[in-house]
Amino acid sequence: MKRLLVDMDGVLANVYEQFIAFEKEKLGITRELSELVGKMEDEAFEDLYTYVNTKDFFTNVLPMAGSIDTLEKLNAKYELFIVSAATEFPLSLTEKMLWLKRYFPFIHWKQVVLCGTKEIVSGDIMIDDHFKNLDTFKGQTILFSQPHNMNRDIKDHIRVENWNEVAALLL
Amino acid sequence: MKRLLVDMDGVLANVYEQFIAFEKEKLGITRELSELVGKMEDEAFEDLYTYVNTKDFFTNVLPMAGSIDTLEKLNAKYELFIVSAATEFPLSLTEKMLWLKRYFPFIHWKQVVLCGTKEIVSGDIMIDDHFKNLDTFKGQTILFSQPHNMNRDIKDHIRVENWNEVAALLL
Repeated sequence: MKRLLVDMDGVLANVYEQFIAFEKEKLGITRELSELVGKMEDEAFEDLYTYVNTKDFFTNVLPMAGSIDTLEKLNAKYELFIVSAATEFPLSLTEKMLWLKRYFPFIHWKQVVLCGTKEIVSGDIMIDDHFKNLDTFKGQTILFSQPHNMNRDIKDHIRVENWNEVAALLL
Repeated sequence: MKRLLVDMDGVLANVYEQFIAFEKEKLGITRELSELVGKMEDEAFEDLYTYVNTKDFFTNVLPMAGSIDTLEKLNAKYELFIVSAATEFPLSLTEKMLWLKRYFPFIHWKQVVLCGTKEIVSGDIMIDDHFKNLDTFKGQTILFSQPHNMNRDIKDHIRVENWNEVAALLL
């Protein structure tokens, strides 16, 4: 059984929607997805570090469309781990575990890794939206499209646009 | 530079002292270390799962004697990661990060892994008090003595009794 590592923010969790909502609510700025293309999250949003350190930021994020059904099927076919680079944000850690329990109750706590760098984690396939995680991974790498990575050509990774494409590729 | 993985509970964090304090405070039972030998933590203490799910249980644990100085020296010599199997206890996660920041400020958040199983983490040397973590690890394994492992003969791991012995072995 192949070991599949799945990222949370920007892959399972729709953090962009939440960033846009915070930017609107806190600063009155309306961001369109199109203007965020090619910018890292902390360049795209004025006050990103405040948002992600705000209590319940991660509690109230919604899952990405189609992620729940597909992940449940992947969980039956692969040795699945959820791997999130999250230790930079201590508040997020408890919230992320409770969020997974709420939306992905079929994921056992043994299947979750919250880390600082993903270089220490081994597996066969990784789904992630950040090059920094994919570029150092030794297995097959799948780039999940998000505004910050949309304008970059890729050659070493397979790009997927949504969870339907993940399902088509891996199920 | 060799990658060294160091456990938290029972290695860096003196959880036994905290279990004994909770058992005394909550149930009025005085436990001696000697009566805990050979018993897993959840056999040794009446209400372990309540204790570890209590807010601030992990915040108020004290570091093991000698751990701070030795870990700081190890941090200069090894590619050091703190690896804690902690996702079973969501409340512990945020508390553990803040606890590390308080007592071990030289540990960067990139050096912390909070997981369910340690099988997914790779490295050269592991220090842990649990056989379940050491037995599946592919590198050098160091067993940190705690009451639950004290009565077992070991052949595949090196046993250390305290942080002075860790220093003597690895520095």
